[in-house]
Amino acid sequence: MLFQDITIVNQDFEIEKNMYVGVKSDKIVYVGKEKPKEDFGEIFDGNRKVLLPGFVNAHTHSPMTLLRGYAENLPLDRWLNEKVFPFEDRLNSERAYFGTMLSVAEMLASGTTSFSDMYFFQEGVMRGAKDSHAKINFSRSIVSFSDVNFFEDARVSEALEAVEKYHNTENGKIKVDMALHAEYTNTLSMIEQFGAYTKGKGLVNHIHVSETKSEHENCKKKYGKTPTQVFSDAGVLDSPTVFAHGIWLEESDREIIKNKGVTVVHCPASNLKLGSGICDTHTLSEMGINVAIGTDSASSNNGLDMLREMYLAALLPKGISGRADIMFPKEIIKMATVNGAKAQGRFDTGIIKEGYKADLTVIDMDKPNLYPDFDILSNIVYSAEKSDVVLTMVEGEVLYKNGEFTTVDVEKIGYEVSRIVREVVSEVQNG
Amino acid sequence: MLFQDITIVNQDFEIEKNMYVGVKSDKIVYVGKEKPKEDFGEIFDGNRKVLLPGFVNAHTHSPMTLLRGYAENLPLDRWLNEKVFPFEDRLNSERAYFGTMLSVAEMLASGTTSFSDMYFFQEGVMRGAKDSHAKINFSRSIVSFSDVNFFEDARVSEALEAVEKYHNTENGKIKVDMALHAEYTNTLSMIEQFGAYTKGKGLVNHIHVSETKSEHENCKKKYGKTPTQVFSDAGVLDSPTVFAHGIWLEESDREIIKNKGVTVVHCPASNLKLGSGICDTHTLSEMGINVAIGTDSASSNNGLDMLREMYLAALLPKGISGRADIMFPKEIIKMATVNGAKAQGRFDTGIIKEGYKADLTVIDMDKPNLYPDFDILSNIVYSAEKSDVVLTMVEGEVLYKNGEFTTVDVEKIGYEVSRIVREVVSEVQNG
Repeated sequence: MLFQDITIVNQDFEIEKNMYVGVKSDKIVYVGKEKPKEDFGEIFDGNRKVLLPGFVNAHTHSPMTLLRGYAENLPLDRWLNEKVFPFEDRLNSERAYFGTMLSVAEMLASGTTSFSDMYFFQEGVMRGAKDSHAKINFSRSIVSFSDVNFFEDARVSEALEAVEKYHNTENGKIKVDMALHAEYTNTLSMIEQFGAYTKGKGLVNHIHVSETKSEHENCKKKYGKTPTQVFSDAGVLDSPTVFAHGIWLEESDREIIKNKGVTVVHCPASNLKLGSGICDTHTLSEMGINVAIGTDSASSNNGLDMLREMYLAALLPKGISGRADIMFPKEIIKMATVNGAKAQGRFDTGIIKEGYKADLTVIDMDKPNLYPDFDILSNIVYSAEKSDVVLTMVEGEVLYKNGEFTTVDVEKIGYEVSRIVREVVSEVQNG
Repeated sequence: MLFQDITIVNQDFEIEKNMYVGVKSDKIVYVGKEKPKEDFGEIFDGNRKVLLPGFVNAHTHSPMTLLRGYAENLPLDRWLNEKVFPFEDRLNSERAYFGTMLSVAEMLASGTTSFSDMYFFQEGVMRGAKDSHAKINFSRSIVSFSDVNFFEDARVSEALEAVEKYHNTENGKIKVDMALHAEYTNTLSMIEQFGAYTKGKGLVNHIHVSETKSEHENCKKKYGKTPTQVFSDAGVLDSPTVFAHGIWLEESDREIIKNKGVTVVHCPASNLKLGSGICDTHTLSEMGINVAIGTDSASSNNGLDMLREMYLAALLPKGISGRADIMFPKEIIKMATVNGAKAQGRFDTGIIKEGYKADLTVIDMDKPNLYPDFDILSNIVYSAEKSDVVLTMVEGEVLYKNGEFTTVDVEKIGYEVSRIVREVVSEVQNG
């Protein structure tokens, strides 16, 4: 495909107009001002369109879309114990598959080309990723309240099986990370064994860290150190690591995070909705820490729309600090694209540049909410909405265009999801 | 029109399924479980649709859509003095007309049926309202730094002319309010004269109040009292009054606001983006104060989408307070509909009830982001986006349906807006 005479967010994350971007197979092979002589097949007319790197949703739990609206107005502990856990207890791979498919549809329609998915029922999630042609970093999260040997834990076994079976499959579109659910859901022995095992494996570690004040403070009471310090001392941060949330991080934590090259994934909607707080992304960014953006699950968000998440990520630091002159749109778009790609250990995507993967999305600027176009980066962050996304391409393949999906039958998925949630609710009620 | 077999947000702001709602002329004349025998002409198939009262954008400045993206990443004072004022200095009624039309299009497409618009160039704004068939409470804002006699001030003259010429015109769709821009932009004499003049006139007073900390604190230094107290003592609050923003209100202010029946309009996006802060709407609501929602202008938002504003209004109180169990979706939807209608002095709209004005909007639930439907009120507030709005009706007239506008030629408006902003920028640059 050739994107013809289109406005792009270029490799420096600046706006460049009247550009040509050529895609062959899974890669961007041409970016330039001149129309290339080569034939790229289909031509996409770029009139009043902006081409940008696809969004990377760096922290989500895709099958939980089945629980959208099921556990409302509750704090994290009650949300989990009273609603989420009993519901999840009735899930299985078949049900998780449909939740994943629904999530992929919502993400594609809002410009997301890759997502980091921490969950279980890996057969179902992986089948969803394959069927939808999605790009995913899956991780089976490890929760262990006993000091069992690492390899004897059932969840660890599943996690290792996922790595063996799926890591770097589907032309590398599917990767598998190692997920330690959190400090408070694992024993110190398990954390240390996790650190020892993952060291040198080249896999990405994905962990919930300092999401709630009580989690953070209880850890300090228990160990005399913060969750970040616990993970650092256990060697967990010696592998590429992603911290989801990081709301209650302290100055010393930020120093460790910076030194270890850890990514912090900001999940503003979920953090607000569960009353957990607001991550200080401005300080993290100023320190040069890699900050990415995630939606968390549709059960605490309640959507998987990265444009909304970017909007929050742009607004909150200004509102909280009282400073309008921080967190420019350029920084927010980087967080939502290339920073997320880095968090996933994908260094060949997230930028519109020759040789990079063709993970792209197009926003139509010919909409009332996007006139005038003084500042297109601002328009993307503050004024664009998912309805303005007209194309989403993953590794050169168009998966969404003008409201239509090429790999997801949304009508069928909607029907199946409705059926599944009726069944689960009935099963939960009947014990 | 008959909305057939549709889910509605009923008069108690609860979800009611399989309902029939009949509209004749400008009113809702039937709401019931049974299909009415009467012929309502066109039938709207309600399958997987939700009918709700149209949103009331209770504080905006519609012509400022011309400035979307023009003044980014600046605090309120620099935003105004360095960018907004020089740009506005080049506006005129003709230009304001196109800004208004663009704003109306954006608002209709996101479910808004009425808006409170504080600006100037009233001929242009009113022409826009008439051409688009919009429902509007317009006010010409009064700014006066001298102790001139009320009736000799040019802005007051315009404000009074607007009332005389336009108030309660277009079948009452157009109303005119009296706007005192703010405490810090008027002398005490002008505030007192405004209070004396408006008393008993039955018009709504609309004022920016305690938007920034410096405004609030400077007022206390100047008068030894808060802006709210100044307005109260000057008799301004003896008329129905709307306070925009109210971020820095104190306990004593809230008591006055409650006793005087003042509405506070929460403008979360603008308040965050300009670094002004966050209004404590939870405390206001708990006290029984009428809280409405506004987008403020597209120059500080940068959109006019009430669904986004509701999303912020729902999330922020939870995040700030650390309590997930406050500000339920029902309350947010009331703020965005009937509370806004009350703020506008419109007591015949904002509720789906026989005899009320047919100011309605329809959300299509057959979208990936709106499955499953455990909690439809939550889905509206947290998961719906403007692309899910499929119909907007103002006083019985369909003004937006499935992406098409009946009264606004968006292509022409987009073209004219682009032309106008090029001209204005050139004029500003050339002094």
